[in-house]
Amino acid sequence: MSETEAHIPLFYTDLAMEAAENLGTGGEGIPGVRMELEDCQIDGGTVKITRVFIEDENGAKALGKPVGTYVTAESASMKQNDIHAHEGIIKVLVDLLAGLEPLKNAKSILIVGLGNRYITPDALGPRVVSKALVTRYFEGEPAEDLKSGKLRYVCAVAPGVLGTTGIETGEIIKGITQHVKPDVVIAVDALAARSAARVNTTVQFTDTGLSPGSGMGTGRTALNVETLGVPVIAIGVPTVVDAATLVNDTLDLMLDDMIAATDEGSDFYNTLKDLGDTEKYGLIKRILDPYVGAMFVTPKDVDTVIDRLSNIIANALNIALHPGIGKEDINRYMY
Amino acid sequence: MSETEAHIPLFYTDLAMEAAENLGTGGEGIPGVRMELEDCQIDGGTVKITRVFIEDENGAKALGKPVGTYVTAESASMKQNDIHAHEGIIKVLVDLLAGLEPLKNAKSILIVGLGNRYITPDALGPRVVSKALVTRYFEGEPAEDLKSGKLRYVCAVAPGVLGTTGIETGEIIKGITQHVKPDVVIAVDALAARSAARVNTTVQFTDTGLSPGSGMGTGRTALNVETLGVPVIAIGVPTVVDAATLVNDTLDLMLDDMIAATDEGSDFYNTLKDLGDTEKYGLIKRILDPYVGAMFVTPKDVDTVIDRLSNIIANALNIALHPGIGKEDINRYMY
Amino acid sequence: MSETEAHIPLFYTDLAMEAAENLGTGGEGIPGVRMELEDCQIDGGTVKITRVFIEDENGAKALGKPVGTYVTAESASMKQNDIHAHEGIIKVLVDLLAGLEPLKNAKSILIVGLGNRYITPDALGPRVVSKALVTRYFEGEPAEDLKSGKLRYVCAVAPGVLGTTGIETGEIIKGITQHVKPDVVIAVDALAARSAARVNTTVQFTDTGLSPGSGMGTGRTALNVETLGVPVIAIGVPTVVDAATLVNDTLDLMLDDMIAATDEGSDFYNTLKDLGDTEKYGLIKRILDPYVGAMFVTPKDVDTVIDRLSNIIANALNIALHPGIGKEDINRYMY
Amino acid sequence: MSETEAHIPLFYTDLAMEAAENLGTGGEGIPGVRMELEDCQIDGGTVKITRVFIEDENGAKALGKPVGTYVTAESASMKQNDIHAHEGIIKVLVDLLAGLEPLKNAKSILIVGLGNRYITPDALGPRVVSKALVTRYFEGEPAEDLKSGKLRYVCAVAPGVLGTTGIETGEIIKGITQHVKPDVVIAVDALAARSAARVNTTVQFTDTGLSPGSGMGTGRTALNVETLGVPVIAIGVPTVVDAATLVNDTLDLMLDDMIAATDEGSDFYNTLKDLGDTEKYGLIKRILDPYVGAMFVTPKDVDTVIDRLSNIIANALNIALHPGIGKEDINRYMY
Repeated sequence: MSETEAHIPLFYTDLAMEAAENLGTGGEGIPGVRMELEDCQIDGGTVKITRVFIEDENGAKALGKPVGTYVTAESASMKQNDIHAHEGIIKVLVDLLAGLEPLKNAKSILIVGLGNRYITPDALGPRVVSKALVTRYFEGEPAEDLKSGKLRYVCAVAPGVLGTTGIETGEIIKGITQHVKPDVVIAVDALAARSAARVNTTVQFTDTGLSPGSGMGTGRTALNVETLGVPVIAIGVPTVVDAATLVNDTLDLMLDDMIAATDEGSDFYNTLKDLGDTEKYGLIKRILDPYVGAMFVTPKDVDTVIDRLSNIIANALNIALHPGIGKEDINRYMY
Repeated sequence: MSETEAHIPLFYTDLAMEAAENLGTGGEGIPGVRMELEDCQIDGGTVKITRVFIEDENGAKALGKPVGTYVTAESASMKQNDIHAHEGIIKVLVDLLAGLEPLKNAKSILIVGLGNRYITPDALGPRVVSKALVTRYFEGEPAEDLKSGKLRYVCAVAPGVLGTTGIETGEIIKGITQHVKPDVVIAVDALAARSAARVNTTVQFTDTGLSPGSGMGTGRTALNVETLGVPVIAIGVPTVVDAATLVNDTLDLMLDDMIAATDEGSDFYNTLKDLGDTEKYGLIKRILDPYVGAMFVTPKDVDTVIDRLSNIIANALNIALHPGIGKEDINRYMY
Repeated sequence: MSETEAHIPLFYTDLAMEAAENLGTGGEGIPGVRMELEDCQIDGGTVKITRVFIEDENGAKALGKPVGTYVTAESASMKQNDIHAHEGIIKVLVDLLAGLEPLKNAKSILIVGLGNRYITPDALGPRVVSKALVTRYFEGEPAEDLKSGKLRYVCAVAPGVLGTTGIETGEIIKGITQHVKPDVVIAVDALAARSAARVNTTVQFTDTGLSPGSGMGTGRTALNVETLGVPVIAIGVPTVVDAATLVNDTLDLMLDDMIAATDEGSDFYNTLKDLGDTEKYGLIKRILDPYVGAMFVTPKDVDTVIDRLSNIIANALNIALHPGIGKEDINRYMY
Repeated sequence: MSETEAHIPLFYTDLAMEAAENLGTGGEGIPGVRMELEDCQIDGGTVKITRVFIEDENGAKALGKPVGTYVTAESASMKQNDIHAHEGIIKVLVDLLAGLEPLKNAKSILIVGLGNRYITPDALGPRVVSKALVTRYFEGEPAEDLKSGKLRYVCAVAPGVLGTTGIETGEIIKGITQHVKPDVVIAVDALAARSAARVNTTVQFTDTGLSPGSGMGTGRTALNVETLGVPVIAIGVPTVVDAATLVNDTLDLMLDDMIAATDEGSDFYNTLKDLGDTEKYGLIKRILDPYVGAMFVTPKDVDTVIDRLSNIIANALNIALHPGIGKEDINRYMY
């Protein structure tokens, strides 16, 4: 975890909406940041949409994310075995994808599945790639659909991670992009979230690509228009929360709870407050690490859950990327 | 998790040594309980052996476990990719198995792999079964080794769990035992531990079989001499800790740490003390459940880790059960 | 393969329709055997239905199968990645299942997945079981659907094979049946076909259960009303053809072809004819075995194909067994 | 298969030794071709080594392979569950690898696993990569072994196939090679063999890289010093034989057998001879294709067999590439 400590700032989150929340105002009144909330009703619940617009450098500095648009869709049903709800979620994601500027006139797309296929919570990207409808190599009759525009030119790779390949992922992608020359790159990755409640329940789309050190793994290189020369849409789902964060959050909730109940413990609470977040988190980490080491909080059935999430995202991509594939084709490309 | 709450007592642990520790005396001076500690040096570290002898009903009541012998072997190397250390651990486990009374004169053995093969941390049992050397059906030439005693009659099943079969596992095993009539049953299962530090680092052997509600899953039926009519050796590894336990333990460690550092917070500490363990744990659970739901603490690479553990246990069984297979054959039966 | 030779008669087939064809008359005019053919149009092709009624002992002796009804559905789309066609096939299978006498009034069903989950072409049964909707253990609210009859009591096991468990599968099933007391058992198994063209393209339903030596593996015990005490429906798909059969058939086709083209080679043809099937097949096996050993003919992508077939069969079962689940729910239970 | 017919010449083989055999002289007296045979005794049998030296353009034209050295090691034990024999085979392969010129002074190596990880017989390359010891990214203490020369700089990728990525594999590799600048590339691939007896029993090493259309898949681009700018060592194992080849070979063996037995059938034999290989093979294909389509001959347990082969090759590479890893470390890097 020393690596993580090195690379990931305190309470790092890849979710712009969490970065805004963490400023304590629930994201209200941050200069250079605009937020929109929306609820979409689906069969079996609600999908909560949050749009974060980082409009200038002030906003970028405040949230520690590049200027751009960040859209999250949240629903606890994502991780559950409820295909009715999944169909509703897929339809919502299709509309969100269709709204992303760089995709609108793109004729050819490269999908990149980041992460380690041999570590389940990190395998989201490779699994989405394995379910994506790849059309670029089509020849003969099927190629007609490419010419007619029913299908877009889609190719997809899951290059593996530095630890298993010995090569910087960013460099591999750069090489492939230079050769394939897509109009846009879509990078799918497992993310790190601030809140355990968002693990496996939240999808984020952004038109800013991936920044260094983002993603569940550490030290991933930047994938964005600067490094690749084409716009990069990043799609991510937080799949783990580190144990220290969980303890820290529970402790805060607990203290609030107890303060409410009694006026005891206020000294302790103040002590903690005086410590400040950094010290408090540091203390927890210092205590936890020898005790559990690099532990993460995941559901027992993470393997099944990651499969569901990759089905949802791959279906949304297959429908959103190919005009000839409609929402009635949901689940058609699951195999 | 309501199920779990229902089935699993507060701070439930399947490890007798933890049950003893939880009595606060580090297991010292519990009437009817005797403990022996031993360190075995291996290439790459130490294996910590703890023997808990529950000698009478007083001991049984105190630890909440049946009268019998419980042996644990602990080593952090178990979960790491260190085959040198694994070979040392396997040799230690072989000796521990050889010391178990019911195995000494057993001619035929039924290995039962409990747990759900589709939920990684619960898949230990089925994976061990898939690597066990099964000899009972041997015919022709290989059968000579059975007659000569070089091999013992071993069969193995992984019957699945109630949730996937719709049938009580205990009943399936009972039916098979009545037919196969083994001299002893060895039940391999994923366990629940009290301490996150013991997750995937501790193996427990016991001659008392499995009690109801033990194991990582909930509501598993008893597998013991009373229910099956033959002695049952249980082999288990704790593979998960629930999030509430982790928070609770960290909180305690943290408070100790802060008390030591300052005299602040003592009121709070006393408040918590007054609460008592049950209330405190209840409070944490009440706060955590809406927040994370049924979360468990596991390493990111749980899939690989469970593979390592099943290799270790299967190798130890293959060597300990078959006189004709020696320690030099370690890793021979991994395929 | 010596085992296979021992257990499987010359040109053994598990498909009653092939047994009839092999009599050379295309199944016409066999005493005690009645056949009905039907074509069902589906989106993307035709499903060919063949019903073989073995009406008495004469028919049984002629086809080497017990008296009873055998229904096969054939479609090359089964093995292809064509979910449109699969949906049509599933609907056809649902109707065929609904027509099977023993299922009509059954309230509780035990599904048995035979075969070795670690050998892909033999894994059909275990994979179907893993996708079957198991309801027998339902408690609380969902149990209402059982009482109301919306769901039937379904449980499912994949006990493994003799080679991996060391226990006769039949004995395990007998023990479970005695405990569960289902109204009917459904046994799903990979079969051996006579014709390579039927590999992974044909499903057979029969109300006679499984006879000894049937199935892709060898020496499987009988699962039928005599051995289990309840009616047994067998569902099977041929997933392999042995190399010698393929060579033999091609040789026959080839010679016909050449005879047609020229009058040369007739001596050779007659020589072969004089040899008779048994000698000819024996000659081929004698030549092939040292050359390739136990080789089977399967498609390269057998893993994907077996997944498709298990999806099709599991979906058909989930719909046919539960009145509350309709054809509109196709693919709902794939996860 | 039309694709295959298009790409693969009649009786195509990737094995130089088979190409030589096919000339009918058993490889004797082919201008520009020199062959050496050697038997290595191992625990549990013999490994048959065949060295084919294509010394000039005459030899290259005769065998349809580029000038260079081709070494094959054959042993039926490779595909069996016999780790004793595997250890012997690994040691033999280590010595063969050490003898390859381009590896002798290479400091950095790129291992490329070709093939489709989702089609078992084509998954050899990706599985070897997943077991290769990758060192290039090492930092801190382990990096010392790189500086000291105990370890060489090794990186490894499995880029997927055109059908799943939509990108020519050759172009991906070219891009990576330009970035990584290894001294040598090692390409591991599943091959097509002429003889079913060599399926999963033969490893070929060559210093000529891969030619277009080689490998089990079709239309793979060339990977050699011309296309990549560095020497390419190709390691391959034939994992399938197409059904038509099997029939053709059996037919030939059969006829010989019958000619020997009787003088009947000679007309037919001559007819076939007059047909010539091309027509005969064409006839068989014409008859087989409508009958079985794209069928391949593989063992039932191909999944396990490919795992064994990838273990053998990955272990041989790990030992041969890293001076600090000795033969006593066999099986150390299986995880």
